[in-house]
Amino acid sequence: MSESTPAESVPEVLEGVPEALEGVEASFWEYERALMANDLETLDRLFAPGPETLRGDAAGILVGHDAIRQFRKGRGGAPARAILHVEIRMITDAAALVIAITAPVTGGRGQQTQLWALVDGSWRVTAAHVSLPGPAVNGTVWRTVGTPLVRGAAAGLLSGQTVAVKDLYDIDGFAVGAGIPAFLAEASPATGNSPAVEALLSAGADITGIAQTDEFAYSIAGRNPHYGTPPNPAVIGAVPGGSSSGPASAVALGQASIGLGTDTAGSIRVPASYQGLWGLRTTHGAVSAERLLPLAPTFDTVGWLTRSATTLRAAAEATLDMNRQVDVAPSYVVAPALLEHCEPDVREAFAPYLSHDTVDLGDIDELFFTFRTVQQAEAWAVHGEWIEAHPGALGDDIAARFALAASVTAEQAAAARATLATVRARLDAMLADRVLLLPSATSTAPSTSADADLIERTRQGTLRLTCIAGITGRPALSVPLLSVPQPAALLPAPVGLCLVGPRFGDVALIDLAEQLAG
Amino acid sequence: MSESTPAESVPEVLEGVPEALEGVEASFWEYERALMANDLETLDRLFAPGPETLRGDAAGILVGHDAIRQFRKGRGGAPARAILHVEIRMITDAAALVIAITAPVTGGRGQQTQLWALVDGSWRVTAAHVSLPGPAVNGTVWRTVGTPLVRGAAAGLLSGQTVAVKDLYDIDGFAVGAGIPAFLAEASPATGNSPAVEALLSAGADITGIAQTDEFAYSIAGRNPHYGTPPNPAVIGAVPGGSSSGPASAVALGQASIGLGTDTAGSIRVPASYQGLWGLRTTHGAVSAERLLPLAPTFDTVGWLTRSATTLRAAAEATLDMNRQVDVAPSYVVAPALLEHCEPDVREAFAPYLSHDTVDLGDIDELFFTFRTVQQAEAWAVHGEWIEAHPGALGDDIAARFALAASVTAEQAAAARATLATVRARLDAMLADRVLLLPSATSTAPSTSADADLIERTRQGTLRLTCIAGITGRPALSVPLLSVPQPAALLPAPVGLCLVGPRFGDVALIDLAEQLAG
Repeated sequence: MSESTPAESVPEVLEGVPEALEGVEASFWEYERALMANDLETLDRLFAPGPETLRGDAAGILVGHDAIRQFRKGRGGAPARAILHVEIRMITDAAALVIAITAPVTGGRGQQTQLWALVDGSWRVTAAHVSLPGPAVNGTVWRTVGTPLVRGAAAGLLSGQTVAVKDLYDIDGFAVGAGIPAFLAEASPATGNSPAVEALLSAGADITGIAQTDEFAYSIAGRNPHYGTPPNPAVIGAVPGGSSSGPASAVALGQASIGLGTDTAGSIRVPASYQGLWGLRTTHGAVSAERLLPLAPTFDTVGWLTRSATTLRAAAEATLDMNRQVDVAPSYVVAPALLEHCEPDVREAFAPYLSHDTVDLGDIDELFFTFRTVQQAEAWAVHGEWIEAHPGALGDDIAARFALAASVTAEQAAAARATLATVRARLDAMLADRVLLLPSATSTAPSTSADADLIERTRQGTLRLTCIAGITGRPALSVPLLSVPQPAALLPAPVGLCLVGPRFGDVALIDLAEQLAG
Repeated sequence: MSESTPAESVPEVLEGVPEALEGVEASFWEYERALMANDLETLDRLFAPGPETLRGDAAGILVGHDAIRQFRKGRGGAPARAILHVEIRMITDAAALVIAITAPVTGGRGQQTQLWALVDGSWRVTAAHVSLPGPAVNGTVWRTVGTPLVRGAAAGLLSGQTVAVKDLYDIDGFAVGAGIPAFLAEASPATGNSPAVEALLSAGADITGIAQTDEFAYSIAGRNPHYGTPPNPAVIGAVPGGSSSGPASAVALGQASIGLGTDTAGSIRVPASYQGLWGLRTTHGAVSAERLLPLAPTFDTVGWLTRSATTLRAAAEATLDMNRQVDVAPSYVVAPALLEHCEPDVREAFAPYLSHDTVDLGDIDELFFTFRTVQQAEAWAVHGEWIEAHPGALGDDIAARFALAASVTAEQAAAARATLATVRARLDAMLADRVLLLPSATSTAPSTSADADLIERTRQGTLRLTCIAGITGRPALSVPLLSVPQPAALLPAPVGLCLVGPRFGDVALIDLAEQLAG
């Protein structure tokens, strides 16, 4: 029925219950007016109370009245729209399905399906499914996209694969933006491809586009103050993880099959963990970092995010010098001290792996501080000059992080480098050819509305896990094998199981992980 | 409830009716298996019979069992997927809402909401709402997209507007593809902007991206054999209209606010009509066609597609030399002979305008053949050499059209040019400063599955309407003021009301149309 002729499509079954239809219709329009006015009180009242109420949209399905209320509070109003048509299907005199065609003022059409029920004498929505037209491209995930942006070789191991390239790599003809508009504005188009890009193209993969990153890749959260936070389809309302946030979300969303990322301190493993992807940080130095904007060259590595082991293996084989790769035996160890930094639910999810032999990595804080000091010194050496010349170009978080990096003295850096060599030798001796198992992150993906303290605690904890591979230059593979129940969601949240193996055991780690995944 | 523990989330209300839950659940999984097997018979059986059954997705809402069956037959199978979670909410023992989280094998997550009811003793879907994850960019609409692709001036009349540029215009740094991959492959990046592009950028609009076109813009259907057919959000399953198909669909979908198109024989007016947009073909010569790939220079014009008169007027003002624009009085005429080519429903929708004074335009076929012969001669002169050097580069339809164009002799062309001058003078004398009203197209948007005969008849008819502006060089504005009831849809299909006004009355036509729109 159209807005002007509301009685047209009353099904026959309803003929005896006109009051019910009128009640549903009045409640529908009350809801619509409240939505456009962002009248939260009325909206909350018109959704059924309790933990069973559902509301789904492209971001996922929220479960329970409270979660839906929190979502509404956080979004600051629904997009303005007109209702083009409403179809009311009475099911009984106490239940009705209401389908509306919506017309956002920004164009396109949407659909809204609601199940209304009489609850305590009032009509309330017990389940809603909302579809809205999307943008040409999601700018939180991508900077530039083509169909494809760059076509790969006609045939090869990666034929049919599509790549989201983190905005740090040179792509012939395109400038690198590094997540910072002011940096992009001054950048010149690259005059060639980074070897990591070229390897994928040569193997037949197409480049779909340039994907977003945390500013200068100096974060593991996946938030960017200029371009916004990419979605995490695995955990509604949660950060995607970073800094390879755009490539990770692109792969999780099905908009690319391979995310070409970088990992200095967890920038592939963390988004893989948060979004339920496979993510490989390669052996340091195994893939050329040429034509790739550095962060901390001692730790910077190339790597990939994928939805499957098969695709990850293909990307690795297409890129790595397979003659240098080594076999790795399924000899696993765990370091219980690392778990102390994890949230209880992650510890519980990891518990089955604690039956493996244990190793004592020593003072975890010492490992982390050593790693961090060298990273800080190098990050400032690489980017300090540009940052000082461009006050205000970075968001507050990353600016503060670089300010801290700037405060590292030459003496502190030298001391940390000396310690780094020592602890690396110690860890190498201890781990030898064995594979260290640990959670990829200390928690599931935090909510985008998490307070700064929680985000910082998560970061401090997770960096203590990720620094082991950084210090040793070992490859680290995050495998989507763990999960943790989520409140207000129908599905559990993913956590990665991380395998840190011997150097140049990259591909062997993928094979081992496939065995673990069964 | 998860797939493995189907009883978990049985609501309390259901405890008395376990058989009903089991019936719904069994039917849900029967449906899912049939969907993955593309078992059309089972799918048809599991959807409720009759004209009330609904199925909605991003393309729109299909109404009635038959329309849904036709859709299924046409699509060749649903995308492969897994079901991550199923939530069954019993409403009565004869009705249930079933919400499923889907995981397409190509990544991302979807949601499916179905209302199942016992119909004649069997569980059937009476309404379904399907959401699927989208691609990084819709390649039927766009070739390359940025966020934005090119940023406009910091402030201006078009500040905040976003532009979809038809893939015929030079954009600095990007090659022109003209809807033909083989043409794109040989094209060099432009070394400057077309004046029509530059005008929008200078007025503050951002360019979102390069949008698709019919091959060499030589069609009004909006189908492209290489990139696919852009969606028409106004008419589910219908062609978008062309050749400015990408810009039109981008604007209709809300992915841009201004479509920069071209119109030789209806390439702005027809997609505007089919999709319910405002579309202006400007006075021939009023906007420079420099750095714009021509089709038939005697008729080629620049123009825009928008969702509102306000935005269209702003684009026109930002681009046109306002000193050359003239006022136009609201003096309307109609030419009943043109309506003979229209479908009955379009004639009926236009009927209210037949009260205006009538004009006799003479032999409509003569007008059309004159126009067409000159267009053919010019199109072959422009593109013939390239086409002959690239056999197989064009799809069959457009290749055949160019083959016909190639057959026009120099004598025929010269004769047509002479006739063109004569009929132009005659039409100018007759129309003078008055505004001719006519439908923008002879029909609503044909289905993408329409047979070749219908498409050709529609084309032949519509070109007889559109050629009046082509012959006279007059501006023509398509206004979304008419509509026609659609079978198997909740909303009517749009048809444009076309205003053909005196030369350089472009902006005045927009003002007149706003008055008509009331």
